[in-house]
Amino acid sequence: MVQQFLDYVEKNQDSFVDRLRKAVAIPSVSGDPSHRQDVFRMAEFLQGELKALGADNVETRDPGEQDFHGTKLPLPPIVLATVGTDPKKKTVLVYGHYDVQPALKEDGWTTDPFTLVEDDQQRLIGRGSSDDKGPVLGWINVVESHVKLGLELPVNLKFCLEGMEESGSEGLEKIIYSEASGYFKDVDAVCISDNYWLGTTKPCLTYGLRGVSYFHLTVRGPARDLHSGVFGGTVHEPMTDLFAVMSKLVTPTGKILVPGIYDQVRAMTDEEQKTYENLAFEMKELHDAVGNQINIHDDVRSVLQHRWRYPSLSLHGIEGAFYNPGDKTVVPACVIGKFSIRTVPDMGMDKVTELVEKYVTDEFKKLGSKNTMKIECSHAGNHWLSSPDHWNYVAASKAVEKVFGVKPDLTREGGSIPVTLSFQDALQKNVLLLPMGRGDDGAHSINEKLDRSNYISGIKLLGAYLYEVAQLE
Amino acid sequence: MVQQFLDYVEKNQDSFVDRLRKAVAIPSVSGDPSHRQDVFRMAEFLQGELKALGADNVETRDPGEQDFHGTKLPLPPIVLATVGTDPKKKTVLVYGHYDVQPALKEDGWTTDPFTLVEDDQQRLIGRGSSDDKGPVLGWINVVESHVKLGLELPVNLKFCLEGMEESGSEGLEKIIYSEASGYFKDVDAVCISDNYWLGTTKPCLTYGLRGVSYFHLTVRGPARDLHSGVFGGTVHEPMTDLFAVMSKLVTPTGKILVPGIYDQVRAMTDEEQKTYENLAFEMKELHDAVGNQINIHDDVRSVLQHRWRYPSLSLHGIEGAFYNPGDKTVVPACVIGKFSIRTVPDMGMDKVTELVEKYVTDEFKKLGSKNTMKIECSHAGNHWLSSPDHWNYVAASKAVEKVFGVKPDLTREGGSIPVTLSFQDALQKNVLLLPMGRGDDGAHSINEKLDRSNYISGIKLLGAYLYEVAQLE
Repeated sequence: MVQQFLDYVEKNQDSFVDRLRKAVAIPSVSGDPSHRQDVFRMAEFLQGELKALGADNVETRDPGEQDFHGTKLPLPPIVLATVGTDPKKKTVLVYGHYDVQPALKEDGWTTDPFTLVEDDQQRLIGRGSSDDKGPVLGWINVVESHVKLGLELPVNLKFCLEGMEESGSEGLEKIIYSEASGYFKDVDAVCISDNYWLGTTKPCLTYGLRGVSYFHLTVRGPARDLHSGVFGGTVHEPMTDLFAVMSKLVTPTGKILVPGIYDQVRAMTDEEQKTYENLAFEMKELHDAVGNQINIHDDVRSVLQHRWRYPSLSLHGIEGAFYNPGDKTVVPACVIGKFSIRTVPDMGMDKVTELVEKYVTDEFKKLGSKNTMKIECSHAGNHWLSSPDHWNYVAASKAVEKVFGVKPDLTREGGSIPVTLSFQDALQKNVLLLPMGRGDDGAHSINEKLDRSNYISGIKLLGAYLYEVAQLE
Repeated sequence: MVQQFLDYVEKNQDSFVDRLRKAVAIPSVSGDPSHRQDVFRMAEFLQGELKALGADNVETRDPGEQDFHGTKLPLPPIVLATVGTDPKKKTVLVYGHYDVQPALKEDGWTTDPFTLVEDDQQRLIGRGSSDDKGPVLGWINVVESHVKLGLELPVNLKFCLEGMEESGSEGLEKIIYSEASGYFKDVDAVCISDNYWLGTTKPCLTYGLRGVSYFHLTVRGPARDLHSGVFGGTVHEPMTDLFAVMSKLVTPTGKILVPGIYDQVRAMTDEEQKTYENLAFEMKELHDAVGNQINIHDDVRSVLQHRWRYPSLSLHGIEGAFYNPGDKTVVPACVIGKFSIRTVPDMGMDKVTELVEKYVTDEFKKLGSKNTMKIECSHAGNHWLSSPDHWNYVAASKAVEKVFGVKPDLTREGGSIPVTLSFQDALQKNVLLLPMGRGDDGAHSINEKLDRSNYISGIKLLGAYLYEVAQLE
């Protein structure tokens, strides 16, 4: 049956590309209120497709309203759908999002971002092609293929599709938790296709993500901004204190200076070291992505270990200081330095905050300044680490071998995908990240693309994965 | 004759306040294009007043156009006028400006900013009352008093009034230089009334200003902004480098760390130390102005020395980094740190730049970063130091004694008034700063005021000063 499915997908490529073309044409930009109606239109489009394919219980959940700089905006619905309710089959929950990043031709797109075009390298170019309309339609194409072939799916499939992923997934987590014992009750495993291959040549399964703890360091001095001519040299300036403390957080080679941070990092085992061998990644890919050769580490292994399994600390900016072009001689009264720490197992979020607070407080005291300092963690999301030994991963690995003829790389990522942790925690089920696109798709950049081969093989992979899930104990 | 004048001013207070009321009612905000016509109206008002008083040669000079963020705006005229052309008399050039800082009721004004009101403490409240419409009208009131009394002025008076002082004096310097051997040819001394008493109780003459050298420190790394999750820990981040270098410029107690800076600072003599005795200034005035007790030095003498005769270094901000409220995890690709050094005799502008460039370059090299760094001086204005022994100052000092019954404090200021240096350099004549308002007038703040007593005594002072100038050899 799986071969029938694979053949069908291969032969019906163009109809799947057509479906992607229709989806890309709806500019469902969640971050731009003037496109909010398009996000709703996109939700309706998906519900229409799912209903047309005979899905059971196509439903929506209303996340409520968004406070957009003081204006109330309706949040687009969470679309839920079920295909198959056979109690003898496993149930797989798939998550995706139907909103996209902003895109304007003027940003430098070579073609209209909301018109899908295929170039001479068979790349399907358009906003959302890879992030995340391609993968979402991938699942729908799997369903359609089975309907057209008159086959039942090997598992029960549940959909959870949101329209605010690019804008903080507002309202989603609450619904995941409230449906854990409701709509999602029978789910055996979760599969999310919303990330990318490590490089451009080899499929991967992703089993880990770093967390992030964000900090605000506030230094307050005068009651109002001061003239640096009149007051320079006579008062403690908040900016001087802020730079003194923030310069002591991390070295130019990325070493975090907060004592105790590295004590929490899980030790590297020989076994783990081996997983970094032969990964499909080259230094050139880092250089291309960065656009410059400013790498701290000179070998692929170190680069990926520092991206995936070691913490990092970045300084992001200052609120309250002069930021425009030109020259302004003001002494800002109150400045807020922003920095974040990417966290890894076994760092505890509270412990990280405690260590940062203690260190920053101590360093500020050493300055002998009369200004006041406040340090606080403004938000924290935990790291996530799954096990590639779980049957959910084994199924995906076998599916990759079937479709691509190679074993997938086992990868982690440096960033966060909060919904991963939400599903794992709320449902207490294994979550698999199974990417469709390549590392160079440019998900949040101009000229976002999804290679035709990734789209078509991706549809095959998602379907094949369901067959493997069905066969495993 | 001077007594006749002083009596006339005392008796005709209300008509002078009326003139100030009319001037304040014209919202000549040079920084707001929507008020540009009002700035022109204010120029016409002054020309009308001067012509009505029989001034000779009321002329204007056109500074041309301003490029306001790509829009061409006409610059308000430089108003020139002459009162008296007797070759046997000395000629005094007075400078003032007729534009004002922005002011909106919503900013927190207790009254409409463009309606002059007198409160129960006889403070004349309104935008421009002290900065600089009061002083400009002060000179016109001196002329009017003499016209009404049928007296000739003791000196020839020349006016130079500009309408862009609050917006960088665009176009003025060129005209000063071109008129040095033209309209300003016979000038013997210059008097500027556009600063303030040191405190609130005692008049002063100001004979020194600090200069300012402004620097841009650019660190460039990746070709585009990066995601800190994906790249944090693997590339040299420009922000980390920038904080490392900028934190080494100045200590929290204001000591500049650039080697060689203090070698250029003129040594303090015992004689100079004495000039800091008994100045009408208290620590409370610093605390009130700052709105907090964050002074580095605990005695008035040190505070004023560090404001007036020692250099200072302030960090102003970063261009290119995150600056909004909230949390953003971007790694900026290129950041420009802004800082300035307030300079004093005998620091050379080129030498300061050379020392900063060398130090910053050395410190950046120590980081071992693969990013690139550029340091440049974006603008520099020299310090200014006059001599209180010059007859121009002696005349002003005697005038203060006549009007106020006290010897004035001899003060310097920490900020820059570039026009001072322009007049001195272009005309090669002594320049005197003779303030009318008090240190707490709030020139650039809400509820700007000029005490009635300062306005009226100020008119007397400006007139008495002309008599003293006439009497000195």
